[in-house]
Amino acid sequence: MDPKSFLDEKKDQRLNELFEFLRFPSISARSEHQPDIKACAEWLADHMKKIGIEAKIMATKGHPVVYGSLMTSPKNMTILYYGHYDVQPVDPLNLWKTKPFEPTLVGEYIMGRGTTDDKGQLFTHLKALEAYTATANTLPVNVKFMIEGEEESGSEHTEQFIKDNAELLKADVVVVSDTAQYGKNIPAVTYGLRGLAFVEVKITGPDRDLHSGSFGGGIANPINVLCDIIAKMHDKNGKVAIPGFYKDVKPITAWEKKQIKRLPFTVKEFLSKTGSKGIHGEKGYSTMEQIWSRPTLDVNGIMGGYQGEGGKTIIPSWASCKITMRLVPHQKPHDICNKIEKYIKKICPKYVSCEIIKHGGAPGVVVPTDGPWLAAAGKAIKRGFGLEPVFIKEGGSIPVVGTFKSVLGIDTLLLGWGQNDDNAHSPNERFSVKDFERGCYSALALIEELAQVKR
Amino acid sequence: MDPKSFLDEKKDQRLNELFEFLRFPSISARSEHQPDIKACAEWLADHMKKIGIEAKIMATKGHPVVYGSLMTSPKNMTILYYGHYDVQPVDPLNLWKTKPFEPTLVGEYIMGRGTTDDKGQLFTHLKALEAYTATANTLPVNVKFMIEGEEESGSEHTEQFIKDNAELLKADVVVVSDTAQYGKNIPAVTYGLRGLAFVEVKITGPDRDLHSGSFGGGIANPINVLCDIIAKMHDKNGKVAIPGFYKDVKPITAWEKKQIKRLPFTVKEFLSKTGSKGIHGEKGYSTMEQIWSRPTLDVNGIMGGYQGEGGKTIIPSWASCKITMRLVPHQKPHDICNKIEKYIKKICPKYVSCEIIKHGGAPGVVVPTDGPWLAAAGKAIKRGFGLEPVFIKEGGSIPVVGTFKSVLGIDTLLLGWGQNDDNAHSPNERFSVKDFERGCYSALALIEELAQVKR
Repeated sequence: MDPKSFLDEKKDQRLNELFEFLRFPSISARSEHQPDIKACAEWLADHMKKIGIEAKIMATKGHPVVYGSLMTSPKNMTILYYGHYDVQPVDPLNLWKTKPFEPTLVGEYIMGRGTTDDKGQLFTHLKALEAYTATANTLPVNVKFMIEGEEESGSEHTEQFIKDNAELLKADVVVVSDTAQYGKNIPAVTYGLRGLAFVEVKITGPDRDLHSGSFGGGIANPINVLCDIIAKMHDKNGKVAIPGFYKDVKPITAWEKKQIKRLPFTVKEFLSKTGSKGIHGEKGYSTMEQIWSRPTLDVNGIMGGYQGEGGKTIIPSWASCKITMRLVPHQKPHDICNKIEKYIKKICPKYVSCEIIKHGGAPGVVVPTDGPWLAAAGKAIKRGFGLEPVFIKEGGSIPVVGTFKSVLGIDTLLLGWGQNDDNAHSPNERFSVKDFERGCYSALALIEELAQVKR
Repeated sequence: MDPKSFLDEKKDQRLNELFEFLRFPSISARSEHQPDIKACAEWLADHMKKIGIEAKIMATKGHPVVYGSLMTSPKNMTILYYGHYDVQPVDPLNLWKTKPFEPTLVGEYIMGRGTTDDKGQLFTHLKALEAYTATANTLPVNVKFMIEGEEESGSEHTEQFIKDNAELLKADVVVVSDTAQYGKNIPAVTYGLRGLAFVEVKITGPDRDLHSGSFGGGIANPINVLCDIIAKMHDKNGKVAIPGFYKDVKPITAWEKKQIKRLPFTVKEFLSKTGSKGIHGEKGYSTMEQIWSRPTLDVNGIMGGYQGEGGKTIIPSWASCKITMRLVPHQKPHDICNKIEKYIKKICPKYVSCEIIKHGGAPGVVVPTDGPWLAAAGKAIKRGFGLEPVFIKEGGSIPVVGTFKSVLGIDTLLLGWGQNDDNAHSPNERFSVKDFERGCYSALALIEELAQVKR
């Protein structure tokens, strides 16, 4: 039997197995679920062993990583699959229509916590692999699995784990299925993520709140000063005004513009998704270009003075804000933090004090669009879904992808089988059976396509 | 015996009487002190009767007003004395060096709650009056007293009381001793107060907090928009940029500039009082001119987005701020609120929503500097203190002064006998015996000086 026929035949069985996996309430953020995390890791390692993968549970200072490998030949390509077996908390429970840890079929959907994020999605790769091992077909690649247990609670020990086990994790490419399709029946390969740089700014004027009558007009107000500084972060074209901010930013390629044009994007739909009255961004770029391929600066929080009901006539002693900048590849978080610090120190007037805390961040990542990985992934999806995939980026960051690149030097393919409205992190998480199935077939095709990539 | 000799003779007696007055814990903000408020009002009315004033306790919806009058002749000038017999709370008690309601002489000071604010100061006028009645000298003026009982808890019912009793309170001039000297041995007449206009501004973008990665760059951030708006409230010279804001503002007179020049003001001392690194204000004006005679705009509070520890990568749904503008005489709070609203609506971009709540405010007041009142007050102080007084303004507002002007049409003389560092509203409130005494003699001289003013 060939691997594809195995997939055809075992549909019910793999759904039942997925349900077993989903029944563990492996909520990493809640200490009372520590035993469930452990049981889930053990089940996963056992299941990997059952399908022929050499698996082990590896301790970290947090929840353990389930590691597995199946090495066929040093001549073969090595794929490192990354995923996570832990899940988000489930409260508020009363909003769930089914029990979160009793996976249930409702119409076309598997309902339950972890269905799409990430148990259901990562399981497709195990099932694709099993289609080889169970049928004794020759696996044309080496595979490694790194399935972590604390992605939903911050992945605090993940970077250290990757550093500590760099040799063990060595591979040619990383495959992650923890994102989503672009939309219904629009499968996608995500080839880039923005990075992040984070600073906090505090402006201090008087050494205590002052009466705004007795002093107002003669002394600077730290809130007004901070607002002035923030206003100077952008120019009139919506560009970030920090000197040198765009120095390492590469122009958007013709290929990328073409991919964006292919998307069924409408401003109307975008606005309805955000509830905003209008779009606004850097002049000269379309919305998707602004979000995927251009760096930004946003104030995430601001505070100062009196925030209660009514009024209080003070000149506050201080005002502060949190600023994050989304970075594109080649911009360095440390460098950007230094540049914003230098700029703020320069524009901040001398009659107030200015304190800047630089938190650094994570660089943006991109899979080379002209390399073999994207092409192979595109072909695999086309075979698994019967649909041409789109090539997209994501405005947010997935830090582990940056770590794989910076520590191991490996590019990551982000192949999401689910949908953005599958309620990851919300009640009534779901994963359509059809997407799960297409994911399994795509995962199988991916093994074949990657096997043919010339190293 | 002439009135001045009576003052000379009764020094100990009036100090003892003041101590009696100070012993009532008439804290208006604490309901458990309602009986003390009542007892204090009764003592005050009785004391007024004892010295020949026709006194009564008049109910309000809050604490009662002690009203008194002594009408000598319709031909005479009528002075309305305003003050308050209630006091501030005393916590934290452990910081007091003496018991707040056991007035104690420590060195040159009377220590205790209410010594300067306002029992001790208002008592000087009663004692000056007594110097006439007790010696059977002819009082050359008519006097009225309105001593309220809730000044320290917001004077909620005071405006209504004045409106309801406009005929009863009719007078030629109001005298208030509830401010301070300009400094040690620098007695002052306060001839102007700034007013206030208050608005709240809220900018709303998306209908919920959005992921700043997935949407940042394509949609406006309400904090950034609000900061832009606030930055546009001032021009580069520190002038308020709202069109028409200065329309009703009169130039600073030569007389006023002269008064300011007479003051022993130093930037160094001003900065040490505020803890600020430098001064900052409207270009072309000195610090005292900026605070006393120019209108201002200050953000008293700002909030939006995430304010907790660490970071949260969001584009917040909204941001808001509280803005007060200090007004000078002739600017109308309602007009100024309309002008800032119009300006913000104009500069606020269309891709966000903008909500402005106009709270109105109080107008600034000024006693005509070329009229008879200031001259009479100046002469009285010179006689009472043996020192030439300075003529000052106050950057803050005393709403009742505006009410006397707007409801009764009467100017108010603000003659403070105390000092700014007498710890009004703080533990260890005090009033120097010397200032109390000089206040009594000045109050006596004031009666004589005002009697000579031509109506």
